[in-house]
Amino acid sequence: MDAASAVDQDRLWDRLMQMARIGAIAGDGVNRACLTPLDREARRLLIGWARAIGCAVSVDDAANLWLRRAGTDPDAAPDLAPDLAPDLAPVVTGSHMDTQPQGGRFDGIYGVLAGLEALSALHDAGIVPRRPIEVVAWTNEEGGRFAPGCMGSMAWSGHKPLAAFAEVRDPDGVRFADALAEHLAEEADIPRRALGGRPHAYLEAHIEQGPRLEREEKAIGVVTGIQGSRWFTVTLRGETAHAGTTPLGLRRDAVQDMVRAIAALNALMADPADVLRFTVGRITVSPNTSNSVADRAAFTIDFRHPDPAVLAARGDAVAGVVQAAVRDAEVSVEETFHARPVAFDPLVVGAVQAAADGLGLATLPMPSGAFHDAQFAVPVCPTGMLFVPCRRGISHNPAEWSEPAQLADGARVLARALTAMAG
Amino acid sequence: MDAASAVDQDRLWDRLMQMARIGAIAGDGVNRACLTPLDREARRLLIGWARAIGCAVSVDDAANLWLRRAGTDPDAAPDLAPDLAPDLAPVVTGSHMDTQPQGGRFDGIYGVLAGLEALSALHDAGIVPRRPIEVVAWTNEEGGRFAPGCMGSMAWSGHKPLAAFAEVRDPDGVRFADALAEHLAEEADIPRRALGGRPHAYLEAHIEQGPRLEREEKAIGVVTGIQGSRWFTVTLRGETAHAGTTPLGLRRDAVQDMVRAIAALNALMADPADVLRFTVGRITVSPNTSNSVADRAAFTIDFRHPDPAVLAARGDAVAGVVQAAVRDAEVSVEETFHARPVAFDPLVVGAVQAAADGLGLATLPMPSGAFHDAQFAVPVCPTGMLFVPCRRGISHNPAEWSEPAQLADGARVLARALTAMAG
Repeated sequence: MDAASAVDQDRLWDRLMQMARIGAIAGDGVNRACLTPLDREARRLLIGWARAIGCAVSVDDAANLWLRRAGTDPDAAPDLAPDLAPDLAPVVTGSHMDTQPQGGRFDGIYGVLAGLEALSALHDAGIVPRRPIEVVAWTNEEGGRFAPGCMGSMAWSGHKPLAAFAEVRDPDGVRFADALAEHLAEEADIPRRALGGRPHAYLEAHIEQGPRLEREEKAIGVVTGIQGSRWFTVTLRGETAHAGTTPLGLRRDAVQDMVRAIAALNALMADPADVLRFTVGRITVSPNTSNSVADRAAFTIDFRHPDPAVLAARGDAVAGVVQAAVRDAEVSVEETFHARPVAFDPLVVGAVQAAADGLGLATLPMPSGAFHDAQFAVPVCPTGMLFVPCRRGISHNPAEWSEPAQLADGARVLARALTAMAG
Repeated sequence: MDAASAVDQDRLWDRLMQMARIGAIAGDGVNRACLTPLDREARRLLIGWARAIGCAVSVDDAANLWLRRAGTDPDAAPDLAPDLAPDLAPVVTGSHMDTQPQGGRFDGIYGVLAGLEALSALHDAGIVPRRPIEVVAWTNEEGGRFAPGCMGSMAWSGHKPLAAFAEVRDPDGVRFADALAEHLAEEADIPRRALGGRPHAYLEAHIEQGPRLEREEKAIGVVTGIQGSRWFTVTLRGETAHAGTTPLGLRRDAVQDMVRAIAALNALMADPADVLRFTVGRITVSPNTSNSVADRAAFTIDFRHPDPAVLAARGDAVAGVVQAAVRDAEVSVEETFHARPVAFDPLVVGAVQAAADGLGLATLPMPSGAFHDAQFAVPVCPTGMLFVPCRRGISHNPAEWSEPAQLADGARVLARALTAMAG
């Protein structure tokens, strides 16, 4: 019996549905923000399952949660040491457990539970590879509560120091550093490990969050890389005034300048090929009352493209285009997140392809449209991802859906690829 | 000694500054929403001043607050009866005490305190006209907490039944009916009067909230009427989706449709003469997170014009223009407020003009750009307003300012006109 054949579709589905009840919202959705009591409840559920198959559990300073199944090598470094010698380094898989405010049941949590399913399958099959295998649940991938996302994987990889996020506030004004400290205090019973490390390889499983696998009837997306992302916040400061008396010619209306700015950005970001992704998803207005001219409007830009040249050229043009479009307000444009396009490593991409081929599953080599924690592992170790199909490409939405059999196929490929890389 | 010469500039200014401390915000502004503890604190201060000069105080079912100075006529109806015989009916003045969230120190409260100053001046001068004179503080003129504004005067005049506002909710989800009931319970010690009545005349003093008096160096605006107002709420329902993966061609992005709708409305509302007032002051977006396509966006329209034909034609076109502009979202357009242009009564307009002339103050006949509680008194009794200048026309803003001497001139005209109309 090999690891893939020990994958249990029903167990995986049942665990996904148990997790989906923690933070459940209308329409089969989930709203489980990071570093909240709901997040901690979900983590405790995961920890219980992991310990039941003998995994060692630890948490690092960024609250990334680690589940480790030991390998056979007697020289393997102890669980909590991040600076493993390269030849003893673990193979790592995982994803995140937080969701968007109107999120679904599969984004993120599938990668964590598929990783656990791989460990469960190895346990059931009695297989112990040479290297340890670790499942990680990264902190705050979504950025829905604290922007930007991927804070846990950025801090782990050294992309940014953890302290850089300390002053970020959630919509209620809570500092990230305070939420993290509260969270770590609640998990003080879990062994702490140092932040960082250098795995042998990192492989993340995820739903596609796009329509290609479904349309092309492929079971597995062999992910070749991730398109780049740049996030901006544009803030416009005008002057409030009485809506009934102030002539339009004398106003400094922040809302009207916001409309001008977004229209100009739409022109800048126009792409007949529809490869470029440009989204204004968050808007705040002040004083936000119907009969006062707005003195302040702020909006976010989420811009993504697989081509580094396009990402650089159009992203660098954002501030100037906004400035030129605005008529009356003072403008500030802040870049809050910048992730270059990344290419995955042949070691991991090849392991996914070989595992899928060996299982007779149809594959599609593809870049990722979404960004993922995996992109921050790229500079640290050989990295890759695998995708499973999701219905109509819908994600960040309660209607998010993948078939149990599709999810199990992904877990089988993951189990086989991890086992192969773990020797 | 006549009423006008007994007006005390320092007393009026001091009372305005005392009131401005209740809800004070940065930059000399005031944020005092209706039916809040701050509102009640301000009303108690007013009541104390009124009782000190012998006024009878009462409150009606809409929480409009009434301060009554008795007249000489022995047959005058008792304080609490709304159905006064016409020949004994009181002369009423007043305005409102609530502010915009980023409001100033004079909008509304000036009309209430100028009315009290007139009563104080009559008291000091020992003058008792034949008719009672009442000062009213109307509930929720601004609409900043519960939209629309002018609920108190609309309910009093019969323009809309009070019950029509019951289910309106503030931004925290509090129902208007619940806030009103809580407020009336807190003022249970104040005698209750029935809602309604038919005054002999209604005259409201207010800062201009526009630039004309200052520019033309006039002390008093003799207000001839009020331009019409129509308010709408536009709601767009699209579909949320992942910002990184969903091609723009497959999105139903509520924010992008909002931008299209506002641009089309700007074209509809274009007015080279700059008489038309068109404002989008309030925007809400859902889920309002930077990396999700918005599934819902809502915005308000505040549209005003002095010409009933323009108000009708362009207002009636709003829904169709929005519908035609929107590409992907479902649209609903709700008209939340509609006040036709009104003309004031020669009895009151003439009393203001005569009083200002008698005091040697330069006047400007003018329409009101803002709407006011006075417009709902028009169908009930002869109605008018007087304006005093305010700096640069700035209002609904902490920088709102009128000179103490300008405010006192307005109170003198008010005292004289009220006395004349009260016989």
